[in-house]
Amino acid sequence: MAVTVLVADDTLASYLSEVFARHGFDRDDAAFIAKTLVDADMQGISTHGVQRLAMYDHKLRHGMIDPTAKASLVSDIGCCAVMDGHSGMGQLISRDAMHLAVAKAHEHGMGIVAVRNSNHFGAAGFYARMAADQGLLGIAMTNSNPLLVPTHSSRAFLGSNPLAVAIGRDADQLVYDAATSAVSLGRIELLSKTRGTIPGAWAVDANGQREDSPDDVLSGMRNDPRVGGLTPLGGVGETDSGYKGYGMALVVETMTAVLSGGLASADLRGRLICHCFAAVSLEAFGRENAVRGRLATLLDRLRDLPSADGEPVIVPGDKERAHQALVDGTVRIDDATWTQIGTISRRLGIDAPPRIDT
Amino acid sequence: MAVTVLVADDTLASYLSEVFARHGFDRDDAAFIAKTLVDADMQGISTHGVQRLAMYDHKLRHGMIDPTAKASLVSDIGCCAVMDGHSGMGQLISRDAMHLAVAKAHEHGMGIVAVRNSNHFGAAGFYARMAADQGLLGIAMTNSNPLLVPTHSSRAFLGSNPLAVAIGRDADQLVYDAATSAVSLGRIELLSKTRGTIPGAWAVDANGQREDSPDDVLSGMRNDPRVGGLTPLGGVGETDSGYKGYGMALVVETMTAVLSGGLASADLRGRLICHCFAAVSLEAFGRENAVRGRLATLLDRLRDLPSADGEPVIVPGDKERAHQALVDGTVRIDDATWTQIGTISRRLGIDAPPRIDT
Repeated sequence: MAVTVLVADDTLASYLSEVFARHGFDRDDAAFIAKTLVDADMQGISTHGVQRLAMYDHKLRHGMIDPTAKASLVSDIGCCAVMDGHSGMGQLISRDAMHLAVAKAHEHGMGIVAVRNSNHFGAAGFYARMAADQGLLGIAMTNSNPLLVPTHSSRAFLGSNPLAVAIGRDADQLVYDAATSAVSLGRIELLSKTRGTIPGAWAVDANGQREDSPDDVLSGMRNDPRVGGLTPLGGVGETDSGYKGYGMALVVETMTAVLSGGLASADLRGRLICHCFAAVSLEAFGRENAVRGRLATLLDRLRDLPSADGEPVIVPGDKERAHQALVDGTVRIDDATWTQIGTISRRLGIDAPPRIDT
Repeated sequence: MAVTVLVADDTLASYLSEVFARHGFDRDDAAFIAKTLVDADMQGISTHGVQRLAMYDHKLRHGMIDPTAKASLVSDIGCCAVMDGHSGMGQLISRDAMHLAVAKAHEHGMGIVAVRNSNHFGAAGFYARMAADQGLLGIAMTNSNPLLVPTHSSRAFLGSNPLAVAIGRDADQLVYDAATSAVSLGRIELLSKTRGTIPGAWAVDANGQREDSPDDVLSGMRNDPRVGGLTPLGGVGETDSGYKGYGMALVVETMTAVLSGGLASADLRGRLICHCFAAVSLEAFGRENAVRGRLATLLDRLRDLPSADGEPVIVPGDKERAHQALVDGTVRIDDATWTQIGTISRRLGIDAPPRIDT
């Protein structure tokens, strides 16, 4: 993906906020959506950053996302709740659901909120970090379009179903955020753009055999019904325990679609997605400072392990923090996305964010 | 492993119960420990069944497990608690901790109990199923001796750190129970006994390179400090996302050792193990019957997927239920274990369980 344009994070956020406000969101809501996208880019998770703007813009213009929808409580018993997103913006529904989980954690010690009828929420880690930044342990997960092929099958049935867990703060925040498939579809799309070959057991074809052509994987995902798909973490078949990644994806499917009473990944076509959010207070576990101290010690011991291959041993979250420090308030925007920004800006009659690389 | 002896499950349970009673456990506690071991064998998880008797017997005789210890509450706030096992039997501490988590779930909607200073608890799935059998969602995890090598390292630092999640009942109970390493050490031990070669990316050597000799892996685990170890789910390096399995193992380490304030896997030498148990009431999610119905539909749709390779598509828990039906109340005991049962029986002056295959 050719990197051609540099913009400052704050002007990009202002721009995105204006775009979403023009789509009918409240100013605060528009600013929150913008923040989640810029945050993903700053962390190096560009698949979930500003390059997604055109997708959200498309769904908003075609009524797949309702900017005026407010998530409602379906049930609320003790520390458990179910919310219905009514086809609203995934980021806003998720923010409200995690706020509720955190409030319940402050009251009861924990909170868990399952959500149905939502939309793509961006990066799962963002919501887990919302809880961690407030001193709790946060968990976020979502189902998705059918992408993952269960072990011994050749049909994409489960979603990529990412799971995120965050705890701690600042440099010692552990942020696990990963699809339960071997890789996300975005990795395959990137390889297709760069004309690469899939280097590992990331996908299977119509016969359940390992597929190395990214274009063939993507064309299978455009078929109806879909053909082939992503392997679960652990790869094809049972040799390297692919059934474990499949099982984890099924657990996420259960915590999202089954608990919320929403649609399963197999039935999703880009909307009516289900999530699940949980927050755990650290008060019972020796209070936050003690937990943070123990966590920091563990993370440092891992980082201090000698490298076997020249690459440093890091902990989940380190790479994203390093990226954020490196880019220092700038976002790199690829050609195709910059063109989309131009189109959207002209349609809305607003200025694209100023470039800082010219 | 040569299978030479068949015994009935009930007589084996009575025998094991007697052995543990002789070690000083209350009758009810001894019967519970026996039940967990026979249950593992009946489910086909023989690594966690009666073949572990000699290990427990050894630890009890050498004071590593205290049969008179009672788990105590360290803290208890809302739906969160920490328990100290005081070096008691892992199965009993875990039973008590899951009972507490379930009681909290009935009161608040959820319960989470972190445990320190426990011992090997057997199969994680047993405790998750305890909650599921009562109509809740159950979660169980544990740390372990250092076995898992973090991505880019060559040193076993984290445990195999299994995670179990169970929900539903009977034939539609989803039971996910898996180490976060590619395979458990038991799989390597079995290959060593059968003189096999490791068929996948299950372990690394002292240089972080894939290791195919089970004997070399096991000898590395006997070294002090340990050399090489198990790969995380996803294999060596980053190609097939081994960092995801490493991250999951670290999440389990955090939920067990960091939350409880106990020892990290890296510091464990076969005792003072940490666990974490959670239970979620299904009342808020449409009540248990509705959740069970949605779950059963999802599981059946997965089972109905056409096979790509001749092996049926199953869901986690199916294999264990099929094994239980197949063995129909009998347990197969391998040569070495049968010899150990003979030795223990003579020492205690009790009869070995009667064989039913002669």
